[in-house]
Amino acid sequence: MTAPAFLHPAAAAALAALSQLLGPRLSAGQSVRALHGAGESWLPAAPPDLVAMAETTEEVSQILSTCNALGLPVVPFGAGSSIEGQIHAPLGGLSLDLSAMSRILRISPEDMDCTVQCGVTRQRLNEELRATGLFFPVDLGAEATLGGMASTRASGTTTVRYGSMRDLVLGLTVVLPDGRIVKTGGRARKSSAGYDLTHLFVGAEGTLGVITELTLRLFGQPEARQTLLCSFPDIAAATTTVVASLQCGLALNRIELADQLQMQAINAWCSADLPVAPALWVELVGSPPAVAHDLALFQELATGAGALRQDIARTADEANALWRLRHSALYASRALRPGIKGISTDVCVPISALPDCIDRILAVVAETSILAPLVGHAGDGNFHLVLLFDPADPDETAQARHINANLIRIALELGGTCTGEHGVGLGKKAYLPDEHGPALDLMRQIKQAIDPRGIMNPSKIFDL
Amino acid sequence: MTAPAFLHPAAAAALAALSQLLGPRLSAGQSVRALHGAGESWLPAAPPDLVAMAETTEEVSQILSTCNALGLPVVPFGAGSSIEGQIHAPLGGLSLDLSAMSRILRISPEDMDCTVQCGVTRQRLNEELRATGLFFPVDLGAEATLGGMASTRASGTTTVRYGSMRDLVLGLTVVLPDGRIVKTGGRARKSSAGYDLTHLFVGAEGTLGVITELTLRLFGQPEARQTLLCSFPDIAAATTTVVASLQCGLALNRIELADQLQMQAINAWCSADLPVAPALWVELVGSPPAVAHDLALFQELATGAGALRQDIARTADEANALWRLRHSALYASRALRPGIKGISTDVCVPISALPDCIDRILAVVAETSILAPLVGHAGDGNFHLVLLFDPADPDETAQARHINANLIRIALELGGTCTGEHGVGLGKKAYLPDEHGPALDLMRQIKQAIDPRGIMNPSKIFDL
Repeated sequence: MTAPAFLHPAAAAALAALSQLLGPRLSAGQSVRALHGAGESWLPAAPPDLVAMAETTEEVSQILSTCNALGLPVVPFGAGSSIEGQIHAPLGGLSLDLSAMSRILRISPEDMDCTVQCGVTRQRLNEELRATGLFFPVDLGAEATLGGMASTRASGTTTVRYGSMRDLVLGLTVVLPDGRIVKTGGRARKSSAGYDLTHLFVGAEGTLGVITELTLRLFGQPEARQTLLCSFPDIAAATTTVVASLQCGLALNRIELADQLQMQAINAWCSADLPVAPALWVELVGSPPAVAHDLALFQELATGAGALRQDIARTADEANALWRLRHSALYASRALRPGIKGISTDVCVPISALPDCIDRILAVVAETSILAPLVGHAGDGNFHLVLLFDPADPDETAQARHINANLIRIALELGGTCTGEHGVGLGKKAYLPDEHGPALDLMRQIKQAIDPRGIMNPSKIFDL
Repeated sequence: MTAPAFLHPAAAAALAALSQLLGPRLSAGQSVRALHGAGESWLPAAPPDLVAMAETTEEVSQILSTCNALGLPVVPFGAGSSIEGQIHAPLGGLSLDLSAMSRILRISPEDMDCTVQCGVTRQRLNEELRATGLFFPVDLGAEATLGGMASTRASGTTTVRYGSMRDLVLGLTVVLPDGRIVKTGGRARKSSAGYDLTHLFVGAEGTLGVITELTLRLFGQPEARQTLLCSFPDIAAATTTVVASLQCGLALNRIELADQLQMQAINAWCSADLPVAPALWVELVGSPPAVAHDLALFQELATGAGALRQDIARTADEANALWRLRHSALYASRALRPGIKGISTDVCVPISALPDCIDRILAVVAETSILAPLVGHAGDGNFHLVLLFDPADPDETAQARHINANLIRIALELGGTCTGEHGVGLGKKAYLPDEHGPALDLMRQIKQAIDPRGIMNPSKIFDL
């Protein structure tokens, strides 16, 4: 092995200082570094100098206090599924791989909560929970770790019912940049005992410390569920149905939107013959009579809004088939342009602003050569365009950036946010001054108070 | 009027500096000061030196920048309903009365949200909302302002369904100690765009800045509701029923617990003949078939747990009559010892720990001469003992403190918190080191970063 070239001047000292603690779990090998430097982002890779595999909170503490003393950047790494460059190491430093911290520490069915290490994936947790009749509801596309999901304040298809990571984390164990270990929140369902530190670390993308354990809320599996797929003449008709359903308090578990181009892509990819028109997938959950009542009411609302067609699943198999269509959306989109992966936009707006936001951005898209099918979590006002551009083509890249920048401008004008669930990382940093104004300086003050040497995931979210 | 005696050395300078801005809305009169120095707390009054009535966010900004330059403490004041000394001014300074900031700025029925000034009470907001079919659900005993409710992270009887102020505030306008005005959060239902500043100010009890505007989630009125009152042989049987109801996902709007002594007090006060045994008031909401289904299931669960008696309201009037019994609890308690107001404890524990926590504290109470009836929000694991002691009697006061201290110790041992919904203020400060450990130092670091001169509600939550 050739001597590694380090980007950060303190990396060699950290390698020496940490090698006894971590042994073979500390690596400066090029391939390991490369594996930790890209994630699912469209940004050019930026690998770390070192990769450390931590196994305990105490080890994380020792790693951070060492790196803090040396001034070496530390970039927390879970499953590597982040898509805005959260795990990039643009200044070099140490990638702190937490995937081995994968123990489920406690499940309390009576209190419907659990405590897990940060490296547990949501899929793993739900497998472990199956026998209890409980589940953890945040349902996103990726195989992600719960620590990473908390750090980006992730959400997904069931947020309309259960909330996002913001709502479901009761407490955390966090290692601060100087190595101090703190516990935030707790197991009580609510507390008014001082500052809400839990929410400060949820969504901080590892810039304030490392989440090593999480206490999470769990839920009972609903007794009954019912799925339907509705087509509408336009986005506004679909959105009207969503708003009315929410106002009526229907027991929506998911309410997912796709646009005309997305439906065309799904038809092609799945050999389906759905109307090529905006569509909503809807899942209602609850007791059997509640679901039956809400289904009838939903159908009435959809009909009133001008629904073109309503496909109701009569069996669990039919429901699964309908959801397979929804889950195929990304692959179907990519098949519109083979070989192109695409990047996903992520704005979120007040729900009443969805049609306006979508109309305006589709007009922008139409002026470019980029295909951009749309799917979204309509109940939250959050949608994704998959921008199918070739990153090797500068002109297409410029057009994709133009679409994304315009989309964010429109969303902010409508009272929305540049990111509903993917986070800021490096990719959305440029938009935060417009979104937050003077509040961004307050975030910087907090960062400087908690991480005065600036070692934690530097240059993410904002620059100092 | 005699020249006022000021506790804080900078008060006279602030009086001079702010009198032009505020005119008659700035007062140093003894009676106004006295009205602003006690709240609903059992602590000795600690009036401010000055009282300012602000009418706009910009005025709040000018007041804070003036006081910050002078180093004068500023104590935000809403309705004066806080009960742990949050509005006390132990160091003197300026009470910032925000009750005149009472405009409802926007109601958006389609997005089910609104923006209000901080001095709007929850009752006022719900009156304004009546015509829209929407409502704001946080339901506590007091006539409180929404700014104050956010600042103490208040909750109440419907938290089991809708969450507390923590869950229902989407965004804030906050004036920082140096006068900067920041907006946190926004109108999107979710966002991953940077640090969660909203949750940092919710529950900060005015120690980090002044909340002047709030964007709040609203909900549609449920179509149907059903109330019942169940008696149980013991607290554990009641709690078992609560846990099972939550696991089954019953559409609980409220599930309120009272102990034997509380029921005896209610019988006496209301001339009722309810069983003198632990009881649960339950309200189910949703569509008519959902409520009917959940009512039957609840009754089955209660019967299985050994319920002694179940009174189901057959009409809205009967439901109101049952809830009137619950709402009489405080007055009924006080009537056990006429002339004594009592103070309310406020621990919150994991729900499965409720019977143990209650058994252990009632054993402590039994060793004293204090009467302490119990009511609680069983679905959250939060309960209150009303300690009926005479604050003029040192022995009784010592006994009441002994009960409260033991209750908090027991709650913390069981994984709970010293305050579920009342906040810390001055009253619970002593218990935070045990509850938070090293995390308390992190709170101090944040305080010092945001309020370096320490003017905002000093000596509340923790000492520096």
